Amino acid sequence: MSPVIEGLLAHRSIRRFTDRPLPPDLLDTLIRAGQAAASSSFLQGVSVIRVTDRELRSAFRDIAAGQVQVEQAAEFLVFCADLHRSSRCCEWQGRTPTEGFTEQFIIATVDTALMAQNVVVAAESEGLGICYIGAIRNDPARAAGLLALPRHVYPVFGLCLGYPDQDPEVKPRLPVDVVLKENRYDDSGDRERIAEYDRTMNDYYLSRGSNNRDATWSGQMAALLGRESRPHMRGFLRDRGFEMK
Amino acid sequence: MSPVIEGLLAHRSIRRFTDRPLPPDLLDTLIRAGQAAASSSFLQGVSVIRVTDRELRSAFRDIAAGQVQVEQAAEFLVFCADLHRSSRCCEWQGRTPTEGFTEQFIIATVDTALMAQNVVVAAESEGLGICYIGAIRNDPARAAGLLALPRHVYPVFGLCLGYPDQDPEVKPRLPVDVVLKENRYDDSGDRERIAEYDRTMNDYYLSRGSNNRDATWSGQMAALLGRESRPHMRGFLRDRGFEMK
Repeated sequence: MSPVIEGLLAHRSIRRFTDRPLPPDLLDTLIRAGQAAASSSFLQGVSVIRVTDRELRSAFRDIAAGQVQVEQAAEFLVFCADLHRSSRCCEWQGRTPTEGFTEQFIIATVDTALMAQNVVVAAESEGLGICYIGAIRNDPARAAGLLALPRHVYPVFGLCLGYPDQDPEVKPRLPVDVVLKENRYDDSGDRERIAEYDRTMNDYYLSRGSNNRDATWSGQMAALLGRESRPHMRGFLRDRGFEMK
Repeated sequence: MSPVIEGLLAHRSIRRFTDRPLPPDLLDTLIRAGQAAASSSFLQGVSVIRVTDRELRSAFRDIAAGQVQVEQAAEFLVFCADLHRSSRCCEWQGRTPTEGFTEQFIIATVDTALMAQNVVVAAESEGLGICYIGAIRNDPARAAGLLALPRHVYPVFGLCLGYPDQDPEVKPRLPVDVVLKENRYDDSGDRERIAEYDRTMNDYYLSRGSNNRDATWSGQMAALLGRESRPHMRGFLRDRGFEMK
């Protein structure tokens, strides 16, 4: 197994960081590593906003339900799906850009995630820890306003980066045979596999170093899927030019 | 710079592969490396369908506008955003899953992309080449039918994996200062930066080893954004339970 794969398998989110800043130029290198990811139709539909302003950091912590690492990490980046840049290219060539297609939304969102994951892998290879902050979508309109995002740009998630001040366990993942199927989606047998995984996760949650609780994965999923999920997202995206037509 | 970052920066898509198969167990390892990526609310909202059946491969090549690597690569995987699995967990616990939220669509789509990019990084570290196949969204209903995908599962993209039988150049990316901003989205100056990048890309397209043409990045973007973008996606997703409410 390559050292790269060993590194990937060792990933866990870091939520407590030391004060140590990133060395000069490392952030640029990480962004370039991110940009090296594939991009659909070579759209490169991503902008990254580095948040250094203390008041902005505090506001983002507020949006993210008070998660302290948003303020404390050496770096906090907001990854944005960006169709504004390519639309401007279209206008510069005297053409009227189409807008609002669900497909364009998917392309830019996927581009953003591919790039971010490369940034994460690069960062971890340099000894940094990371934590994705999906909770900026708690109030995406405020997040977009804080960063002066134009129409056709939306904040997909935040990313905290810094040197770890904790060493949490790796969280067990679903069994491979639940996730990987051959030629057709056949989930017969998955209920038993997931029940076994629930026991693994219950042991993990009961015995890990912090935030112990008596929980299972399918119980978490029931809670998650049993409630409304950020119902404001649709209206927010429509307001920003993502019509989903 | 870490060897991992050097590897990321060396990425280019591979579209011609040797006949050599993957060694036993490597695919499982790659999937585990993919699963190690972060997952929003730990949804793990991804299923991967490995397509080994020759007729299925041929059908997918057809969907993907005839791209030969879909048939010829040692492996062809279809990455699917999956809310079916977590919905079942909800039902097993006697609860009715909510469905159709745009937010859920984003979570599962992002999960899928993060996982896939880890698979890609892992694969390249083992000497494999890869090519994402977004073109399976040319006919996502047929793709879903071929793989017997249930409701609440949609095919986001395909991925070819195999040993490279070509050595294409790395494609230049946008300048970092176009993509990375500080504290606010400020694209003043980007027109000039992109014009400079267009010259870089024009040199690249004119001089690369194959498929030479007189093109620029912003010209490509104008063509891309100037036309309708897979207008069937919205209806397809609605039919599959992704209401975008």
